[in-house]
Amino acid sequence: MARWEPGARERLVLAAVDLFNEHRYDATTVAQIADRAGVTRSTFFRHFSDKREVLVAGQETLSRLMAEGIAEASADATPLGMVAAGLERAAGEMGPMNRELGPRLSAAIAASTELQERDALKSVGLAAAMTDALITRGVADATARVAAELGVLAFKQGYAKWAEGEKDDGAPLVSFVLEALSELRSAAGSLG
Amino acid sequence: MARWEPGARERLVLAAVDLFNEHRYDATTVAQIADRAGVTRSTFFRHFSDKREVLVAGQETLSRLMAEGIAEASADATPLGMVAAGLERAAGEMGPMNRELGPRLSAAIAASTELQERDALKSVGLAAAMTDALITRGVADATARVAAELGVLAFKQGYAKWAEGEKDDGAPLVSFVLEALSELRSAAGSLG
Repeated sequence: MARWEPGARERLVLAAVDLFNEHRYDATTVAQIADRAGVTRSTFFRHFSDKREVLVAGQETLSRLMAEGIAEASADATPLGMVAAGLERAAGEMGPMNRELGPRLSAAIAASTELQERDALKSVGLAAAMTDALITRGVADATARVAAELGVLAFKQGYAKWAEGEKDDGAPLVSFVLEALSELRSAAGSLG
Repeated sequence: MARWEPGARERLVLAAVDLFNEHRYDATTVAQIADRAGVTRSTFFRHFSDKREVLVAGQETLSRLMAEGIAEASADATPLGMVAAGLERAAGEMGPMNRELGPRLSAAIAASTELQERDALKSVGLAAAMTDALITRGVADATARVAAELGVLAFKQGYAKWAEGEKDDGAPLVSFVLEALSELRSAAGSLG
């Protein structure tokens, strides 16, 4: 089986997250990240404008993919069906790099209030992107907001299970995410 | 009608939020906050351990009140009924100080990524506190999570409408929050 070989951008992200974990976000420099990834500082700056963007870039991609999936969902999709389409689109783009990153990023976040705050804002950004995309599709405001929150929860829960799992089980992220969404949908039906 | 007179603690919170707004969170010192509030630095430190706690203390109180309300909800309450009890308990404690604070805090948050991150983590903390309290009451994990998210959304939406409203209309925060929860509950029923 071919081993996955990260490119420069992927190595930079992994190096950054490991350094945030070992030291602190504040105490980590671009020079250290580039050094750990085995690239030059100018290679770093071809991929990211600063160390903050290493964390933010992934979120912007995720938000864009989720919004695209919602925009392209079939005309008769329910609000949660549109969310599922957004999640499928985003999850479909996640590969071995993201799976490798998951546990390391979780560890870095657990150790740092600053990264917890960033991560929390990231979830808010994803929910906002999905809410906007749903409203554009004609979904009522409150419904869009609730559907988007369930979507973010499903993505986070599915991602965590996927990243925790055995490396050799073949299930893709999308199946974990859609299973989580289905569970949350049932839960929403038993709120009373 | 007696005008509401803030005490030292309330003045410190209002002064801090205004200063975070005018300058930046990072650029604001404890000395400036105490000075603006018309108290000494030692009075500041009788109320808060540092400037960060000015923002955090309110959240801890909110989380505690929500959890207490859920713990004390009637034995036959539905998950969302327990959330409503938690919201009622927390909203019932919010007075003129909180109403005055709302728009200023929103302005400070809108102007600062750092405060947005803190505020996002605050929402995560409230949701976690409600989720834990619901699970303790025997609510299934996924249901607890969804109910708690709706509770946080309802509190934020209700608070925003209350703080935006005319100063003289007498409706208490709790009525705005429960109305928002009811709207979100209907929305959860039309997700598809």
